[in-house]
Amino acid sequence: MQIKAINPNTTLEMTENIGKVADQYTDASTDVVAVSPENGPISIESYYDDYLAIPGLLKEIRTDEEEFDAFINACWGDPGINACREVTDKPVVGIAEASMYVANMLGATFSVATVLPRVKDLVKETVRTTGLESQCASVRCTDLSVVETETARDAACEALLEASHQAIEEDGAEVICLGCAGMSKLDVELEEELPVPVIDSVAAAAVLAEGLAKLGKTTSKVMTYKSPEPKEIKGYPNIFQFGEVSVTPSD
Amino acid sequence: MQIKAINPNTTLEMTENIGKVADQYTDASTDVVAVSPENGPISIESYYDDYLAIPGLLKEIRTDEEEFDAFINACWGDPGINACREVTDKPVVGIAEASMYVANMLGATFSVATVLPRVKDLVKETVRTTGLESQCASVRCTDLSVVETETARDAACEALLEASHQAIEEDGAEVICLGCAGMSKLDVELEEELPVPVIDSVAAAAVLAEGLAKLGKTTSKVMTYKSPEPKEIKGYPNIFQFGEVSVTPSD
Amino acid sequence: MQIKAINPNTTLEMTENIGKVADQYTDASTDVVAVSPENGPISIESYYDDYLAIPGLLKEIRTDEEEFDAFINACWGDPGINACREVTDKPVVGIAEASMYVANMLGATFSVATVLPRVKDLVKETVRTTGLESQCASVRCTDLSVVETETARDAACEALLEASHQAIEEDGAEVICLGCAGMSKLDVELEEELPVPVIDSVAAAAVLAEGLAKLGKTTSKVMTYKSPEPKEIKGYPNIFQFGEVSVTPSD
Amino acid sequence: MQIKAINPNTTLEMTENIGKVADQYTDASTDVVAVSPENGPISIESYYDDYLAIPGLLKEIRTDEEEFDAFINACWGDPGINACREVTDKPVVGIAEASMYVANMLGATFSVATVLPRVKDLVKETVRTTGLESQCASVRCTDLSVVETETARDAACEALLEASHQAIEEDGAEVICLGCAGMSKLDVELEEELPVPVIDSVAAAAVLAEGLAKLGKTTSKVMTYKSPEPKEIKGYPNIFQFGEVSVTPSD
Amino acid sequence: MQIKAINPNTTLEMTENIGKVADQYTDASTDVVAVSPENGPISIESYYDDYLAIPGLLKEIRTDEEEFDAFINACWGDPGINACREVTDKPVVGIAEASMYVANMLGATFSVATVLPRVKDLVKETVRTTGLESQCASVRCTDLSVVETETARDAACEALLEASHQAIEEDGAEVICLGCAGMSKLDVELEEELPVPVIDSVAAAAVLAEGLAKLGKTTSKVMTYKSPEPKEIKGYPNIFQFGEVSVTPSD
Amino acid sequence: MQIKAINPNTTLEMTENIGKVADQYTDASTDVVAVSPENGPISIESYYDDYLAIPGLLKEIRTDEEEFDAFINACWGDPGINACREVTDKPVVGIAEASMYVANMLGATFSVATVLPRVKDLVKETVRTTGLESQCASVRCTDLSVVETETARDAACEALLEASHQAIEEDGAEVICLGCAGMSKLDVELEEELPVPVIDSVAAAAVLAEGLAKLGKTTSKVMTYKSPEPKEIKGYPNIFQFGEVSVTPSD
Repeated sequence: MQIKAINPNTTLEMTENIGKVADQYTDASTDVVAVSPENGPISIESYYDDYLAIPGLLKEIRTDEEEFDAFINACWGDPGINACREVTDKPVVGIAEASMYVANMLGATFSVATVLPRVKDLVKETVRTTGLESQCASVRCTDLSVVETETARDAACEALLEASHQAIEEDGAEVICLGCAGMSKLDVELEEELPVPVIDSVAAAAVLAEGLAKLGKTTSKVMTYKSPEPKEIKGYPNIFQFGEVSVTPSD
Repeated sequence: MQIKAINPNTTLEMTENIGKVADQYTDASTDVVAVSPENGPISIESYYDDYLAIPGLLKEIRTDEEEFDAFINACWGDPGINACREVTDKPVVGIAEASMYVANMLGATFSVATVLPRVKDLVKETVRTTGLESQCASVRCTDLSVVETETARDAACEALLEASHQAIEEDGAEVICLGCAGMSKLDVELEEELPVPVIDSVAAAAVLAEGLAKLGKTTSKVMTYKSPEPKEIKGYPNIFQFGEVSVTPSD
Repeated sequence: MQIKAINPNTTLEMTENIGKVADQYTDASTDVVAVSPENGPISIESYYDDYLAIPGLLKEIRTDEEEFDAFINACWGDPGINACREVTDKPVVGIAEASMYVANMLGATFSVATVLPRVKDLVKETVRTTGLESQCASVRCTDLSVVETETARDAACEALLEASHQAIEEDGAEVICLGCAGMSKLDVELEEELPVPVIDSVAAAAVLAEGLAKLGKTTSKVMTYKSPEPKEIKGYPNIFQFGEVSVTPSD
Repeated sequence: MQIKAINPNTTLEMTENIGKVADQYTDASTDVVAVSPENGPISIESYYDDYLAIPGLLKEIRTDEEEFDAFINACWGDPGINACREVTDKPVVGIAEASMYVANMLGATFSVATVLPRVKDLVKETVRTTGLESQCASVRCTDLSVVETETARDAACEALLEASHQAIEEDGAEVICLGCAGMSKLDVELEEELPVPVIDSVAAAAVLAEGLAKLGKTTSKVMTYKSPEPKEIKGYPNIFQFGEVSVTPSD
Repeated sequence: MQIKAINPNTTLEMTENIGKVADQYTDASTDVVAVSPENGPISIESYYDDYLAIPGLLKEIRTDEEEFDAFINACWGDPGINACREVTDKPVVGIAEASMYVANMLGATFSVATVLPRVKDLVKETVRTTGLESQCASVRCTDLSVVETETARDAACEALLEASHQAIEEDGAEVICLGCAGMSKLDVELEEELPVPVIDSVAAAAVLAEGLAKLGKTTSKVMTYKSPEPKEIKGYPNIFQFGEVSVTPSD
Repeated sequence: MQIKAINPNTTLEMTENIGKVADQYTDASTDVVAVSPENGPISIESYYDDYLAIPGLLKEIRTDEEEFDAFINACWGDPGINACREVTDKPVVGIAEASMYVANMLGATFSVATVLPRVKDLVKETVRTTGLESQCASVRCTDLSVVETETARDAACEALLEASHQAIEEDGAEVICLGCAGMSKLDVELEEELPVPVIDSVAAAAVLAEGLAKLGKTTSKVMTYKSPEPKEIKGYPNIFQFGEVSVTPSD
C-alpha cells in the first residue's frame, strides 16, 4: 500500500518527521511518502497562511495521484480538505478529524492543545466542520509558533503541559488532541506527566488512512465531492486543469 | 493482536458472520474472537432489547479482558458503549460510531439505512450521542427485522436498495451506513446498484479497533470512564463485581 | 389512584424515603407504593451501575402493571426511561425530567447539584435527552456518594450548599434541581440558606405522575414506545417475555 | 386552593370553556377562576395581537394577586410569560409549555396542530423558548381562525384531524399538542380517530399549575424574574406601578 | 429620505440623543425624526417594561406611516420587532440586530456590554432570535440603570470599560456592542481605551435603515409579517385597528 | 468614498456588471472600482474553484489597499473572507453575509436560490459560518452554471423562478437571496413574478460596505483577524509578504 502524507506547509524538517511517524504506525508493507508543496508559507498560523497553502497541497494530491491508495492532509485545520476530496476519489484523511475521532472513542470529552492564540477561531471552525463540537471541552492555545513546536521541543512540551493541565482541570477534558503536526511524537512525553491519553494527530491519521484503504472505499462522487467542473483557470499550471478546457499557463 | 468482537444479541449465526468480516479486514497477524452473551434477546429492535442485552455484553468484556487488545461492540446503536469503556481500559469501538466516522471522511453527508421503523429514535439518539447529527442526512427504516437481515438476504438487499435510493435522491445522502450488524457484507452488492459508497459497519469497526490498538492508546480513566465504583451488586455473578465489596450471588 | 415509585437501586432506606415524599405531595386518595428491584447495584454512580439497574427496574414495572395508574422512575438519570415506556402504556415519569420541567417554570435557568464528579457526563446526557440543555446553567458535582446523601445528611447539606452557591454566583443558576433521589427532602433546609427555589426531584415527579394520570393520557404506542417485539430472550425469567415466543428460563 | 386561569384574549365564550376544563382536571377542593382582560384583541393570531394582549394579561395577574396560589396563561404562545413571572412570585404555567412537557413524557416526538399558517413562526418560537425544539416533529397549521375553533367545532375537528394525520404520517409525530386554547376538549373526539395521544393544553396546564402549588414552590426572584424595577410608567393605570414612583394615570 | 427613529421608552432626553446620532450617520438629504411613545415606561429594564412599551411603539409606527421610508426600533432588545414588521411594509431595523450584524463583519466574535444584570436573559434571547448566538462571546452586565447611561456619562464609561475588558480578556470578545440606546456616542471614548471596535447600536441601525431604504426593498408580506388580521381590539384607540372591524374606544 | 468590489472569478463581464450594480446603490460621491484577479478560475462552482480563487482575491485587497475605504467580496460563498479581514483593517463585506442580513430584516425566513446542485454544501457552510442557519428555510439549486447566469438571462430567470416557488411553497421561505453575483439585477424581474422580496446580493453588499465605512469602524485586530504573521512564503510574489521576512519570488 502507498500512502502520501502531505505537509501543507513548506518546512521540510516537519515533513520528514510527519513521514517517520506515519511510517511507524502503519504496516511494514505500507509505504508512506511524505511531501510538501513547492510553494506556500513555511507554517500555517492564520487563515491567510491556510489559504496560501491550499493550491500547493492540491497540486501534491494531483501529482502521481494514481500511485497512491490514500492521502493524509497533515495540518491541524485540515486545510482545503473538501477540495482534496474533489480532486481524487482515493480516501483523504485530515489529521484534525482523525485525532478527534480517536479522542471521541477514548474519552467523553477532548480538548485541543495548540499553537498561537490567534488560531483559536480557525481550530474551533475545524472542530465544528468535523461535527464534534459538543464533545470538545475547549481549545487551549499556547505562545508557541508552529516552527517552535519543531525547533524548541522542551519549551513546546512545557507549554503543552500547562495548556493540557488547564484543559483537564478547568474545562473537564478527558483526552488531549495535539493540535499541530509539528507536535507529532510529543504525545509520549506528555502522557508521562498527564493523567489522560494524548493523541498524536499524525499517528491517528496514519492508522485511519490505512484503515480506509483496507476497506476499499472511495470518496463519494455523487454530489459535493464530484470532480471539479472543467473550465479555464487562468495563471495556474496545467496540472490544475480538469477536463478538456485549456488552461492559460502562468507567466 | 487479539480483538474481541461482541455481538450483543444471542443469534450465533450473526456472531459468526461478524467474526468473519472483522477477520477479513484486519491484518493476517490479528486474531478476531467473535462472541455473544449467553443471556439476552436474540435481536435488538427496541430500547427494551437494547437494555436487556447490555449486562451480557459487559460480562463478555470482563471475561478474559486482559487477553485482548481491543473490543468491538457489534450492534448499530452501540449499546452501553460508555459502560463498556468503564469496565476496561482497552479501546472499545462501536460499529455505529465507526461507520459514521468512515462515512464522514468519504462524503459531505450520510444516511443510515436500517431495520424496523420503531428503531428510528434509537438510531437518531446514537447519531446524536456520537456527535455527527449535522452530517446525518436521514435515518431510513425498512420493514426488515434484524433476523431477516441474516435469513432473507435477497429481500434485505431489495429493501436496503429502496431505502438508500430515497436517502440519496430525497435527503441528499452521499454515503450510506448499513445500520445493523446483520447487514454486514451486503455493502458489496449494494454498491453495484448505488452511486455512493456503502459502509459495512462491522468492517469499519474492525479497522478502527485495530488502528486504536496500534496507536497504543487506552481509554481515559480520569473521569467519566473511571472503573466502576466498588459496591454491592445484588443478584449478579461475581464477575460483575469491582473492588473489594462482596457481591450477593444470584439464586 | 395507585402510583408505583420505583427506586432503581437496591438500598431500601432510600426506597422508603422516596415513598414518604411521593406520598406527602400527592392527594390523600392516592396510594404510593415504593419498591426496589430485587437485584442490582445498591447505588447508581456510573453508566455501569445504571445499566445493571435497568433490568430489575423494568421487571418492577411489569409486576402487577395493571394495578397502577402511573409509574415514577426515581433515579436522577431516568435510567431506561424509554424502555419503561415500551413495557407499559401507563404514564412513566422520571424524577430528572420532572424536576427540570418544574425548574423551567420557576426560573430562566437551572443548575443540577449532584453526587460524584464522574456522573457529570451522565447527568448532562440526561439533560440533553430531555431537551432542556439550553436552560441548564451547569451541572455541579460534589464529593458525595449516593449512599452518603442518605446516611450523612449534614455533610450532604453542606456540600450541596456550596455547589448551589457556585451554581448561582458563577453560572447564573436561578433554580437548583437536586440531582439524586437520596437528596429528597433536603430542599427545605437548603432553601433556608439559598436565595433560589430548590427542587426535590421525587416530589416533582410525584405531582407530575399524579397529574398525568388525572389527564387520563397514556403513552403513545404508535412508534418508538410500541410494546417490545415478541422474541426469545435467553436467560431472563418469564416476566420479561412479550408475545407468544417462549423464553428460556435462567438457570 | 385558588387558581386563576387567564385567557389573554377578550372572547368570553372561550374564557368560560377554559374555566370549565381547568376545573374538570383539578381537585374538587381547588377553585378555578377564569378571566379575560377587559381590553385587548378578541383573538391572538399574530405577533401584533400577542403584544396588545399582554398589558391586559399582566393586569389580571396583578388584580387580587395575593388571593391565588397559581396562575394559568391560557394562550398557546404563552404570551408575556416571562413578564408574568416578574409580577408575581406565585407559579405561572403557560398552556404551551405545559402541553409540551406532558407530550414529552408520552412520546418520543410531538407535533403542534394549530390555527392559521401565519402563526407558524410564533408557535416555533414558543417551542424554542421552552427548549423542546429537538423533540418537536413539526408545527402543522390549518385554515382555522381562533374564533372558529370555538364556533365551528365540527369543521375544527375535521381540520385538526387532517393536520394530525399529516404530522403523524409525514413528520413522525407520536403525540399531538392542540395549539390553541379554543381547541380545549377536542382531544376526546380526536383521540377516537387518531392512533396517538392528543393533549388538551388547558387541561395539561391545570394539572401542572395545581402540582406546582402543591409543591409550595415560588418563582425565583434572584435575577431574571425579579419584581419590575420601580419607575414611572406613563399613561398606564396605578395597578401597573411597582415601588414608590408615582405613575401618570391615563387620560 | 425620511427615517423615523422610535425610542420605545418615554425619556425624551434619550430620544433626542438617538435622533442626533441617527442624523449624524445618515446622508445630508436624509431626515431623521426621533420620537417616543406618549405612554409607557421611562426605561426598559425588564420583560415587564419591554411589553408595556410595545403598544406605544406600534402606535408610533402607525402614525403617519406612509411618510417614512424606514423605521428604527431604538431599544437593545428590539422589542416587538416582529409586530413592527406586521404593521408596515417599510423596512424596520432594530438597533440590537443592526449592531450585531456590524460586529459580525468586523470580528470573529462579539460581546454585548449592557445595563443591569437582570436583563441578561432578555439580551441573550435577543441574540438568539437574531440568530447570532454562536458568534456571541458573552453578555456582560453592569450596575448601570438605563437612565444612568444618559445622566451619569462618566460612571457609565467606567462601568462599560470594565465590562468590556472582562469580555475581551476572559470571554475572547473581538468587538463590543453597546447594549443600550442610552450608551449611544460612548463608543468614541471607549475605543480610545480599548483594543477593539465598539459599536454604537443606534449609529449601526441608522446606516442599515438607510441602506435598506436605498435598496427599495419592503418587508415580506407572504406569511409571518402579513398585516394583522382585521378584528375587534377592545379598549385600544382607532389607530390600532386593521381592516373594517370596529374597535371599541378606551373609556 | 472609494469602495473596491472584487469579483473573485476571472470573468470580466461579470466584474463589470458587479461594478455597475454597486455603483447604482451607493451615493453619487462614492466611487466603486470593480476588479477581478489576474489569475484563477473563470467561475466558482466547487470548493476547488473557491480555493484557487482566494490567492488572487487576497492580492487584489493588498493592491493599493490604502486608497480604499471598504471592500466587497463578490462571490456568494464569501471565499476567504476571514483572510481578507486579516490583510486589511478596512471593512470587508461578503455578498453572502450582506444578503442574509438584509433578508433577515425583511422576513422571518429566507432561502437561497443558486447555481448547480454540487454547491449546496458550500452554500450551507456559508450560511452556517455567518450564523443564520436557523433562519435559512432551504438552499435551492438549479441547473445553471455560474457563467450561464450572465450569458443566458432568460433561462436563468426561468430556473430561479421555479427554485423560488419551491422555496416559498414547500420550504416556507419569506425572502429569496440570489446566491450568485452573476444573478445581480435579476431581482427586479423575479419580484414581478414572486410574492416575496428578492435580494440582489451585490446591491446588499454595496449598501452595507458604504454603511460600515460611514460608521468609521475598522476590523478588529486583537485576535483572529490580526495581520498575518511575518514569514517566508515560498513561490508567491512580494505583495503577499507581511513583515520583514524576505519572500522567495515565483520563478
